[in-house]
Amino acid sequence: MVEPVLIVKGHFIHTPTADAYEVHENSCLVCVDGRVEGIYPVIPDRFKGCLVHDYGNRLVIPSFVDLHLHAAQFLQCGMGMTSQLLDWLGDYTFDLERQFQNREFARKAYTLFAEKLVACGTLRACIFASSSTQGTEELFEVLKEKKICAYVGKVNMDRNAPEFIIETTQASLDGTRYLIEKYQDEQRVKPIITPRFAPTSSPGLLKGLGALAVKYRLPVQSHLSENLDEIQWVQALFKRSKNYSDVYFKNNLFGQTPTVMAHGIYLGEGERDLVKKMDVMLAHCPDSNINVRSGIMPARTYLDLGLRIGLGSDIAGGHKIGLNEAMVRAIQLSKLVNLTDKTLKPLTVAEAFYMGTKGGGHFFGKTGSFETDFLFDALVIEDDAMIAQRYSLEDRLEKFIHVGDDRQICARYLEGEKL
Amino acid sequence: MVEPVLIVKGHFIHTPTADAYEVHENSCLVCVDGRVEGIYPVIPDRFKGCLVHDYGNRLVIPSFVDLHLHAAQFLQCGMGMTSQLLDWLGDYTFDLERQFQNREFARKAYTLFAEKLVACGTLRACIFASSSTQGTEELFEVLKEKKICAYVGKVNMDRNAPEFIIETTQASLDGTRYLIEKYQDEQRVKPIITPRFAPTSSPGLLKGLGALAVKYRLPVQSHLSENLDEIQWVQALFKRSKNYSDVYFKNNLFGQTPTVMAHGIYLGEGERDLVKKMDVMLAHCPDSNINVRSGIMPARTYLDLGLRIGLGSDIAGGHKIGLNEAMVRAIQLSKLVNLTDKTLKPLTVAEAFYMGTKGGGHFFGKTGSFETDFLFDALVIEDDAMIAQRYSLEDRLEKFIHVGDDRQICARYLEGEKL
Repeated sequence: MVEPVLIVKGHFIHTPTADAYEVHENSCLVCVDGRVEGIYPVIPDRFKGCLVHDYGNRLVIPSFVDLHLHAAQFLQCGMGMTSQLLDWLGDYTFDLERQFQNREFARKAYTLFAEKLVACGTLRACIFASSSTQGTEELFEVLKEKKICAYVGKVNMDRNAPEFIIETTQASLDGTRYLIEKYQDEQRVKPIITPRFAPTSSPGLLKGLGALAVKYRLPVQSHLSENLDEIQWVQALFKRSKNYSDVYFKNNLFGQTPTVMAHGIYLGEGERDLVKKMDVMLAHCPDSNINVRSGIMPARTYLDLGLRIGLGSDIAGGHKIGLNEAMVRAIQLSKLVNLTDKTLKPLTVAEAFYMGTKGGGHFFGKTGSFETDFLFDALVIEDDAMIAQRYSLEDRLEKFIHVGDDRQICARYLEGEKL
Repeated sequence: MVEPVLIVKGHFIHTPTADAYEVHENSCLVCVDGRVEGIYPVIPDRFKGCLVHDYGNRLVIPSFVDLHLHAAQFLQCGMGMTSQLLDWLGDYTFDLERQFQNREFARKAYTLFAEKLVACGTLRACIFASSSTQGTEELFEVLKEKKICAYVGKVNMDRNAPEFIIETTQASLDGTRYLIEKYQDEQRVKPIITPRFAPTSSPGLLKGLGALAVKYRLPVQSHLSENLDEIQWVQALFKRSKNYSDVYFKNNLFGQTPTVMAHGIYLGEGERDLVKKMDVMLAHCPDSNINVRSGIMPARTYLDLGLRIGLGSDIAGGHKIGLNEAMVRAIQLSKLVNLTDKTLKPLTVAEAFYMGTKGGGHFFGKTGSFETDFLFDALVIEDDAMIAQRYSLEDRLEKFIHVGDDRQICARYLEGEKL
């Protein structure tokens, strides 16, 4: 139940811009119809008498937005981490994804996934399910019960993967259309067009998916330029496309509707321009990039070019579902880049926090910060008394990002509703 | 209380060598007087009727050995992570370490530290306290209560740090001698000679500390070659030494008694030879190396040279106290190294696990594995039923290393005693 007016008291920290935190110590945030009305030192007269949730000395921060993860890979988090991308898919991932054809298994595994996702503070996410239509239906249902906001994609693949996990082009498109029609009017859990990636899609599948995206005005998610072998493979498969991005672009899957692409590590100049022009968002997935030895996304360079970047846990190429871990790893990778090229400044903590909140939140509209008119999505963070006494609010947040986990999140709000 | 004979049942995984796991599924480990007598498929007749702790389908693994961390920095874990080493010391660390001159503060903060350390499965550690003798005394007492094994060092510094945290050479040596005499006969928590690092030590202090190490036959810990600025500073301060290692070596602080040096990132050929010849152990602290932008220790190269390497969380240059996190980051860094030099193979999970158990355990004698005659130090790991059903024991361990935390450790043993 969303209260018409809710007042939350505590210490608010958010990043309206990526440059720095904005801090409101001991303040009152007024939330009207699920949106931030304003943050005040004391409750304004016109809101006197409204419901107050008082969090005292705790931090209140925007909840996390995960732009890229695979729900069907949750069970295998942290396994098979000695393989590179294409081997890892073959040895670990496809076999697990097959199990999601079984509704009961899917329901059980997706419930574990969703519980941990919410526990860790991610209340908005762009999620890959599996190629199974009925399995994906289970994921929609599980997430609806959890009441978080998500785009959920049945994974489309009709070639270049084991028989047991691909479908015919027609079956893949039909299943996708079925889920779209069933869930397109949902408030919080909505369909998204999800070709796994170019190499496992026939030209006909890509064309059909692009047509669905345009017809139903649906967003799109996929993988882009993650690994050098993969890029060569795409070039061999799609000889008439200029580059990897162009494969999607030609098929109405690259910004013709809102689009998020995972990774984008090795984008050439032309691709960077296209990403920018089409307002395609990139999901930076630092743990995954290291674990499957893809490389390091040049995040600083892309930010300087004005590309939009959010963060992805990329479960299960990434092993940690808490998006704060992706923030930390993004910072750590940027420091390593800086060791070899001093002109590329490491990401600040505020920049990484921005990526994981307002940066990615852009894909969901006005979310990810506490600015006026933004949806009130928040986490309440409790830290140890010795820390709270001694350190600034910014230090306390930096500590939570680096070492905190779900045990420290004592309340979660989505669109003004306490979950 | 150590049982004369204890039998532990479960799935045992350990790394007698770094090449691979040794796995004993559904087995019985017999522990006599705190040491492993053997691992058997069923309880041998001669041990029938002895006490059994049955862990069913859970994993039993060696407990973690942390070769390098700063107890007095625990509160600041994950803060100030935008600074480089020397700035970070000045802006964050020294001011906090000063507080440990206050016994009450020290007791409280060290208790938080010790509880988390034990919770996360580290039952042996080489620990820096602060420069305060009385604060360090509190750490000895707190750790004795927790009953873990640790070498604890009062941090010696008599120059090149703020006045409020250094001591005179004499006071530093006197405090060290006081603690040695008080604690040298302890069973589990013992003194270790701990010059902070060469730059904060006068030649007289180093000489005096080396004399104490030799006289009392005490081990030594310090920092070595962590950062390029630091190395230049050492060269400027100790013009008559051949290199950084030689500063310690000349003062009987480099292998004349068992020695562990943190980092050792930039060791030249001569230093590598000396490390090997003097059997100095290196504590690889991957998170810290990235966080304070020191560089990446060439772990694979050192392993190939036959140097002994263990792992350190390096709290609080490193932010995570769970040593499994250091294993993961060591693997991740080795993968990044491999991206630019294919001849340097990434660390396997077994190699990283070895480093954090038997590798570092060597500093404490026969510890860190379940070989016959080794002290029985162990963690019992419980994972989710869906994981346990589906995956191999090796996969389950890999998953615990990557995503597990203290909540999954359901029992801890040290020298055969259940803690």
